[in-house]
Amino acid sequence: MEIPKYKIALIVGAGSGLSASLTRLFAREGIRVALAARQVEKLGALCTETGAKAYACDATKPEEVERLFGLVEREIGVPDVVVYNASGRARGPFTELVPADVEKAIAVSAFGGFLVTQQAATRMLPNKHGAILFTGASASVKGYAQSAPFAMGKFALRGLAQSMARELSPQGIHIAHFVIDGGIRSAARSEPADGPDSMLDPDAIALSYWNVLQQPRSAWAWEMELRPWVEKF
Amino acid sequence: MEIPKYKIALIVGAGSGLSASLTRLFAREGIRVALAARQVEKLGALCTETGAKAYACDATKPEEVERLFGLVEREIGVPDVVVYNASGRARGPFTELVPADVEKAIAVSAFGGFLVTQQAATRMLPNKHGAILFTGASASVKGYAQSAPFAMGKFALRGLAQSMARELSPQGIHIAHFVIDGGIRSAARSEPADGPDSMLDPDAIALSYWNVLQQPRSAWAWEMELRPWVEKF
Amino acid sequence: MEIPKYKIALIVGAGSGLSASLTRLFAREGIRVALAARQVEKLGALCTETGAKAYACDATKPEEVERLFGLVEREIGVPDVVVYNASGRARGPFTELVPADVEKAIAVSAFGGFLVTQQAATRMLPNKHGAILFTGASASVKGYAQSAPFAMGKFALRGLAQSMARELSPQGIHIAHFVIDGGIRSAARSEPADGPDSMLDPDAIALSYWNVLQQPRSAWAWEMELRPWVEKF
Amino acid sequence: MEIPKYKIALIVGAGSGLSASLTRLFAREGIRVALAARQVEKLGALCTETGAKAYACDATKPEEVERLFGLVEREIGVPDVVVYNASGRARGPFTELVPADVEKAIAVSAFGGFLVTQQAATRMLPNKHGAILFTGASASVKGYAQSAPFAMGKFALRGLAQSMARELSPQGIHIAHFVIDGGIRSAARSEPADGPDSMLDPDAIALSYWNVLQQPRSAWAWEMELRPWVEKF
Repeated sequence: MEIPKYKIALIVGAGSGLSASLTRLFAREGIRVALAARQVEKLGALCTETGAKAYACDATKPEEVERLFGLVEREIGVPDVVVYNASGRARGPFTELVPADVEKAIAVSAFGGFLVTQQAATRMLPNKHGAILFTGASASVKGYAQSAPFAMGKFALRGLAQSMARELSPQGIHIAHFVIDGGIRSAARSEPADGPDSMLDPDAIALSYWNVLQQPRSAWAWEMELRPWVEKF
Repeated sequence: MEIPKYKIALIVGAGSGLSASLTRLFAREGIRVALAARQVEKLGALCTETGAKAYACDATKPEEVERLFGLVEREIGVPDVVVYNASGRARGPFTELVPADVEKAIAVSAFGGFLVTQQAATRMLPNKHGAILFTGASASVKGYAQSAPFAMGKFALRGLAQSMARELSPQGIHIAHFVIDGGIRSAARSEPADGPDSMLDPDAIALSYWNVLQQPRSAWAWEMELRPWVEKF
Repeated sequence: MEIPKYKIALIVGAGSGLSASLTRLFAREGIRVALAARQVEKLGALCTETGAKAYACDATKPEEVERLFGLVEREIGVPDVVVYNASGRARGPFTELVPADVEKAIAVSAFGGFLVTQQAATRMLPNKHGAILFTGASASVKGYAQSAPFAMGKFALRGLAQSMARELSPQGIHIAHFVIDGGIRSAARSEPADGPDSMLDPDAIALSYWNVLQQPRSAWAWEMELRPWVEKF
Repeated sequence: MEIPKYKIALIVGAGSGLSASLTRLFAREGIRVALAARQVEKLGALCTETGAKAYACDATKPEEVERLFGLVEREIGVPDVVVYNASGRARGPFTELVPADVEKAIAVSAFGGFLVTQQAATRMLPNKHGAILFTGASASVKGYAQSAPFAMGKFALRGLAQSMARELSPQGIHIAHFVIDGGIRSAARSEPADGPDSMLDPDAIALSYWNVLQQPRSAWAWEMELRPWVEKF
């Protein structure tokens, strides 16, 4: 039973929640981390703390994504773990949604996911080694009222992940999609009144991402749903 | 038990297959039909045969879709049945897909679906009456290798349909999504050698669309999979 | 496009709700109907009204099911439509469920379904013609708290139906499973206060069963979910 | 982030494959292991190797299951991890299946699962601590031709697991269902010719069971699919 070894991770859609937990966990495991976000200023403290390096990138722009991978490759190396963590949404009564907002939401949640993972796969395939992880939501599998744009983007991202799993797993690339069902606890949102652990601890999510990365290729998961013990579903 | 009555149908993404069968069926049932497609020349014979009226429209352009609904409303009336039948795809090894093609495929399959059904819903809701039907594919629920863009668009369209079903059904609008699993027989593709009815007859699909439209609101289906009797699944 | 023709129907698990609506619809369409239930006394009025014939049968007993099919064959003919409509349940906190009740619930919902449809299929296959319909519930696809036995039986029945669809459809037998999501209106339960059609009208369900029976084999549905327009899902 | 600690495991349906890998892993982690099977002779070497203790039990018999839990409790302690790993099947053309075999298959795969997990939950709930794991198969989510009985049992077991997850997770019991999609490698079945790791390594499956047990309750998975990297799905 061979546990995969990873060396360089790139997290796209980095902020202060899950991606920060992943960055710390990867750093502890000796993995060098590149972070990409539209605004990188907010990532300064995390980079200082973990040694990660931040890159500005709009994931919906093909040329920016290509440039990102070129830079990371030059400055750190070819990432063998890529996490797509960005998402966009627009909420409200269906008839009041603004088309430009919907287009943007789909672009951030799904088209950006395609652009990033295509660059990633192109660099991983020659080595027949690598992992691509997608952060989904309950909206990946259930279209809620007043939230069609988020469902469209997240359903699309799941379709992308599943198609990639069928195509790229047999070429040695581990594809995994996570359905995060519930609110993620953050510094801004302290533990709610309805009891301990009623929101997802981002460190706990990161642990499950990590454990999927540790799976030997004879028993890969392509999808996992995570929710707090008290969450209705 | 009250069977809904419909008067005016708009089919977006009209061509020679399923949409032609729907047009003939609707016409037989006394429903006036508007057809929309990027190119309308090919629709001439069908319009002559059925009395349908054709409109040129790129469903991925907000202003064209809005103009379409304005024209149909003026020339025929407000459609109380709208079918979204357009789709785009790009095929090939994942790393060889062209980003612009992928963006286009998602736009045609999913964003156009949003634009059209938002216009439709806006006009149906005041009457608390109407039906919106979506043509999906096996790729709506399964992401196949070498076909990520089609899966992205079709998964997204299904997310849209499900979200709309949750939001708009209780407001009197029947939302239904069809998973067409198998090849559709066409004049161009004669009956294949592996036996009768091994491809979907577009008239048979149209019949099931019609039967869903006939459902009393106390027992609505929001989704139906259709496949030939001999199809593997 | 060839619409299937059916002549003799057998409904197992017959009572006063959906099965009565089906019986009336079948009778109107010129189909002779046999009804089976553990207690047949309650079926007297329906038989008088529709000309249906009632048979006592415990569907969980192989010998009784075999005897039922023998009798129906002799007295009416070989059924080419069979509906499995029986179900059992046991509710309550998981740790308080009585094992014998759970065993019984599974037997009625699922094992009886196997016994009945095996007899049915055996008689239909030589003619390469027939339809077998299963009545499922929201519990067929979602296991609710405090209702494990019902979920076990209904999940199992759905597994049976799906396996039969894969095996028997290509042999000419139409298999369809209905997910009835919501309460069925009955004489005993008058229209609830929260608005018209907020419960499933059994006649409306029967209409969808009928429409599935009318599907040409080039475009068969194997499953359909039905719920009231205002039902949460 | 609190990682759950477990002390005593009971594996029902123990043999030489996955359950042996689990036993070794649990033993390494300091967890005492009880094994239950209809025949315990085959478990001798594993018990000697790991210090596990074997119990004869027919999981489909309520009184035997109750006796099992009483014995384990007395001799080792109350198990806070219970794995239901037994399954039954009957294969062949649908019309040739023997009803008694089908009944047996459902009883072993599903009813036994109920009996075992009810005993388990009853003992875990007072402590608001424990985990119950179910071994499913691709047949848990897909009914294959010529294999209805296996689908019936495995669908039912999944319905049980999902119902328990909804009911017992908020009471502190972690419920998880594994969909094992592919053949499990065994001593008897050496590595197949089509490449390394093309069958599931039972040690690799056990690792994922373990990682799910390690999940903090703020981010629990209730289901995971595992398949070899080269498996079609």
